[in-house]
Order: sequence, then structure tokens, then C-alpha cells
Amino acid sequence: MSLPRIAVDAMGGDEGVRVMVEGAALARRRHDQFKFLLVGDEARIRQALENHPNLRAASEILHAPDVVSGDEKPTQALRRSKTTSMGLAVDAVKQGLAGAAVSAGNTGALMAMSKLALRTMPGIDRPALAALLPTLGEHDLVMLDLGANTDCDARNLVQFAIMGAAYSRIVNGLESPRVRLLNIGTEETKGTGDLQDAAALLKRADGQLAFTFDGFTEADKLSRGDVDVVVTDGFSGNIALKAMEGAARFVADLLRRSFSSSLRSKFGFLISRPATELLKHHLDPNNHNGAVFLGLNGVVVKSHGSASALGVAHAVAVAARLLEENLTERIAADLARVGEEAIRTSGRTNGKAAVNPEVAPAAEKRA
Amino acid sequence: MSLPRIAVDAMGGDEGVRVMVEGAALARRRHDQFKFLLVGDEARIRQALENHPNLRAASEILHAPDVVSGDEKPTQALRRSKTTSMGLAVDAVKQGLAGAAVSAGNTGALMAMSKLALRTMPGIDRPALAALLPTLGEHDLVMLDLGANTDCDARNLVQFAIMGAAYSRIVNGLESPRVRLLNIGTEETKGTGDLQDAAALLKRADGQLAFTFDGFTEADKLSRGDVDVVVTDGFSGNIALKAMEGAARFVADLLRRSFSSSLRSKFGFLISRPATELLKHHLDPNNHNGAVFLGLNGVVVKSHGSASALGVAHAVAVAARLLEENLTERIAADLARVGEEAIRTSGRTNGKAAVNPEVAPAAEKRA
Repeated sequence: MSLPRIAVDAMGGDEGVRVMVEGAALARRRHDQFKFLLVGDEARIRQALENHPNLRAASEILHAPDVVSGDEKPTQALRRSKTTSMGLAVDAVKQGLAGAAVSAGNTGALMAMSKLALRTMPGIDRPALAALLPTLGEHDLVMLDLGANTDCDARNLVQFAIMGAAYSRIVNGLESPRVRLLNIGTEETKGTGDLQDAAALLKRADGQLAFTFDGFTEADKLSRGDVDVVVTDGFSGNIALKAMEGAARFVADLLRRSFSSSLRSKFGFLISRPATELLKHHLDPNNHNGAVFLGLNGVVVKSHGSASALGVAHAVAVAARLLEENLTERIAADLARVGEEAIRTSGRTNGKAAVNPEVAPAAEKRA
Repeated sequence: MSLPRIAVDAMGGDEGVRVMVEGAALARRRHDQFKFLLVGDEARIRQALENHPNLRAASEILHAPDVVSGDEKPTQALRRSKTTSMGLAVDAVKQGLAGAAVSAGNTGALMAMSKLALRTMPGIDRPALAALLPTLGEHDLVMLDLGANTDCDARNLVQFAIMGAAYSRIVNGLESPRVRLLNIGTEETKGTGDLQDAAALLKRADGQLAFTFDGFTEADKLSRGDVDVVVTDGFSGNIALKAMEGAARFVADLLRRSFSSSLRSKFGFLISRPATELLKHHLDPNNHNGAVFLGLNGVVVKSHGSASALGVAHAVAVAARLLEENLTERIAADLARVGEEAIRTSGRTNGKAAVNPEVAPAAEKRA
């Protein structure tokens, strides 16, 4: 099967063209069927390609005079869709010049441009940003939304569950992923009205779902490997993801500090190097790089701004995998299977007014 | 100075009376001015006290025939305030029989009972649950709210900031703690309207505050030691706290796994035992046990349900410290200093309608 080529925003990310081109080259070395459209400053891309003849042979360059900056507001960036490397990479997907786009630039701008150019799929109100997180189990965890939507209603959450499960089935090869909603407790009465409504809808749709809905989960149980997809609004998801990143870094810092606190510990550390290397490998975000915007008419992958070439290669591989497995068609099929009705129902019970009236006003909603 | 005695709910927590009494005994061994009112099943408390003559000499027992269960709804528990160990421990503070209450029972029930019996302080609309978290810096971080209030408006957040700063000044001895609001980005346009309003209010009140307001922070920056108080709504706070706990446990589990993966690693681990013990000590939640309900007319401390005797002793010491330093009066003084007006202002701009109209509807609010 011939894979559509992948548009790479060569200018995004903290280190820009060098790392992006190196990452694409690494991905290409691993999968020789990959083809690329490298978007950005033509001269600089040509120069970076000099060290990568293999990639050069598999790439075309699309010149873009402009770059979206890291702190640029999405509305500003949108106005420069036709001149920036990010805008043109996304547009290449829209025009059919590429099957997927990968960018390490400004997340908000990428989201806004992708939504405007590619539009959301029929049946999906809002796209969501999904990422893979390491667990103690056999599979990575799919978590969404990670910041694309600050406020989400029950209907959005149900759609996220369907999209996240489709993603998990593709990347983890699971037949019926176990899906949970992130909440501050597992009892039915916990959390916001939207969460309770979403849970009720998913429970009701159980027979038609391409996944198993297991109710609520709390944020300290995400790494245990007993849940495959965790669904949340973008605010909480962003907070949870960053809290986990920060805590992991904190523990690693403490470890480094305590190991260097005595000669004996230093020696112990050196001896156990293979173990700590294993740990480092498992926790290295580059090995989990590549967040996906789900729910668009096209595949867009966000590489972390500080990702290494290895990380970029990983993000490119994610994009290729989603193309190969027809992510968009898969989500469309899952949506059809549940039926419009099951999701539409939430339109009626949408928002805080829908909180179960049996539940006492305030005391019951506490953690 | 003679310290008012501390009411201990002797029946709460996963292990109940044995651990609670052992914890109180440990606290008493460390601080011989501590006096206790032990609330619960009299016969079982008497029995547990047999091994702790020191504690017995400093304690009175208040019999309570009932216990609040871990999964009981707060509204149900409230009805049994007059017969349960938790209810009577809180009531003892109200009646002036004790200066503070410590319980390891059901958080929601403790919150509901404390709020009903002790009422919120003048100028405070809702109490908040605050805890201390370890950092790489010199001081622990104060974080609130951790689950007492699922939804919070700008006015609540400003009040939390004032209370959290007072707490930080007491437990960390800081003159002007650095306070930040938890958000999904540090730019002014990030997050919900309530967060943006709260930031604007705090910025405006800057001269009158007993702390320094430093704007927003993200959840991956909490352990670095460059912020002393982090303010958030109870939903996000609970998610962030649990995400950090889960991630720390995940890394520790991975570490254990990788260290036991080869004989060489095992040997290295043994040699570096002092380092890993130091790490364990730093991360042990028992060394940070004791979350505080701030904003009540009285001191109530929540010990973790699974805390050891050491953890309980820590929670008791927190309660004693807050009594000694007059937490309630301190918060009242800080509120007066800012002036009613500064906080009241948020009444007008409360909620989503107050989002800066210059900010574009959706794209700007993304992470």
C-alpha cells in the first residue's frame, strides 16, 4: 500500500528546522515507504537536507516565508495561514497534497488553523487533543482532551470517548478499550452535572459502543494500566497531564539529588545504571511524543515544542499509523454505530441544570 | 502559653482507633504541652490507651456511639452529627471544649459537618481544603482548594488566595508568600473567565495584600519551589493533587521494577539504600499529612484515611501550630487589610459573562 505523504512544519518547535528535518530523516530510515512535504524556509530546509540524502530523495519542499511564533495568539496566527509554515502544512492536507500534517509549533494556533482548514467531522462538535501516556500495564493510555476545549458539556465528552476509543483501538490494537471519565471520585454523585450526564449517556449506549465504559476514574489511578482511554474536559486534562509531568520530573530530580549526596550512593547509582536507564527510557516524553487532534477531516499531529529528533520521528510515525489505519473513517464508523440519537440526547440534558434533582445541592458534590 | 486541647476523632480512618490513638500518643511524646479530647467508642479508646500512659494522662474521653462510614453521603452523615465521633469532635470545637478537631474520616462529611457547626468566617463565602506539598525549594507548597468546592467563581478564588497565604505565613514563616493561580497557561488570556477575573482583582489589590501575587502557574511547575501558594477550584485542585500522587507512585513503582530486574541492579540498589531512603522519606505522604479546612470559625484538620501513626501525629501537630498562631484571627486581619471592597468587586464580574470581550470567543482560550 502506498502511504500518502506527510506534511512537516519544518519551522515549528524550540529548535526549528534542524531537529524537525533530523526527526523526519530518522522516521524515514525506520520506514522507507514514508514520503514528505517539508514546509518552511526553502533555503534553510535545503541546507538541513544536505546531511540527509535519504530524506531528500523522499521529500518535496513547499516554501513558506513566515513562521508562527510560540506566544502568538491563535487569532493572529489565523490571519497568516497562507504564508506561515504551519498554515501551509495544514492547508496541504486540505488540498490533498499530503495525508497528514505534523507540527511542533504553537498548540493553540495549530488547533485554530486545523479546525478552520479541515473542519470537524460530521457528528463531532469539537475536535480534541489526545496523547499517549505510559502505564504499568501492557498498553499506553489514551487521554483527551488535553487543552483544546476549556469548557466541555456532556455531549462533547461522549464524542471524545468515541474518538479516544477509536484511537486506542488503532495504536494499541485493542478490540474493546476500557474507557473512563476523569472525576474527583468514583461515586455516581461526584463531579459536575456534565460529567454525571456524560456517564449516564455512555451507560445507556453501552450495547452500541465500540468500547467498554467503566464509569469514573480518579487522577491517581491513570498509570496503573487498568484503563485504556481517559476522557476529560481540556482544562482538567491539561492540568492532570502537566501535574503528572511535573511530579515525574520532581521525583527524578530528587533521585538525582539523593544519589549524588554521598560517594556510596554515587557508586550504587553507577552499578545500577542499566536500571535507571530503563527508567529514563520509559519516562522520556520523546518516546510518547505526538499528540493528535481527533475529530477533524484529516490527520494533524502535534509534536512537543522541546521534542528531540527521536521525538519528532515518533510523532511522524504516529501520523503515518493513523493514515494507514484510516483514523477518520474509523471514527465515522464508530459514530454511526452508536447512532446520532444516543449522542443527541445530551443536547437536552446539557449543562448544570441537568444535575440529578435527588442530589443535594452542595454537600454531595464534594470530594 | 497553654494550648487549648485538640479533639481527635478516634474512629475515623482506614485503621480506626489503634492508629489514631498511637498517632496522638506520638504527637504528645514530641510536644508535652498537648492535651486531647479523644472522641469515639469509650471502651475501645480506653483499651487503646492502655499502651500509652503518657497520652492517657493528657486526655479526656468523649463517648460517641456512632461512626461515619467512608462511603456515606455528607447529607446522611449530617443527620448523625450528634451521635458520631466525627460530629462530636467538630461540635467540641463549637462548644469550646477543644480548640481544634482532627479526623481521618470521610472528607465530604467532615466538610459538611464543620461548615454547619462552625460556620464560615465573616468575609469568607466558602471554606477551602488546603494541603502542604513537598517541593525542591526550602518550603512546602500550600495548595487549595483540593475538593471542597467543585465550582468556584473569581470571588472564591480571591478569598482562597488570602487564606492560603495566611496559612503559608504560619507554617512556613514567610513574610510575603508568592501566590499564583493554577491555569493551563501563563498568558493573561488563558483559562476561564473566573480565573481571568480573579487575576485582575488580585493584581488591582496588590498594595494591600499580605502576599505577592505572581499571576498564573501551570501544573508542571508546582514542585520547583518558586511559588509558595497555589490557588485553584476544588475540581482542578483535586485532579492536580491526585495526578501528582499517582505519577510519583508510578515512578517509584517503575524504579522498584527496574532495580529488581537484574542482580547487578539489586546490588546497586542495596548499596545506594541511604539515597533511596532519603527519597522515600521526602515523598512519604505521612510527612506532609494534615489538610486544613480554611475559612471556618475554628480549626479542623483532615488526616489522610490511610495515614500511619506518624501521619496522624503530623496532622495533630499541624492543628496545634494553627491554634498557637491563631490562624482564624490571622485570616480575619488579612481580610480586613485588603478591605471588603476589593473582594466584593468580583461580585460584579462574577462568571463567564465577564470574560474580556476583546478576547476572541474560542480560539484564544486554548492551551
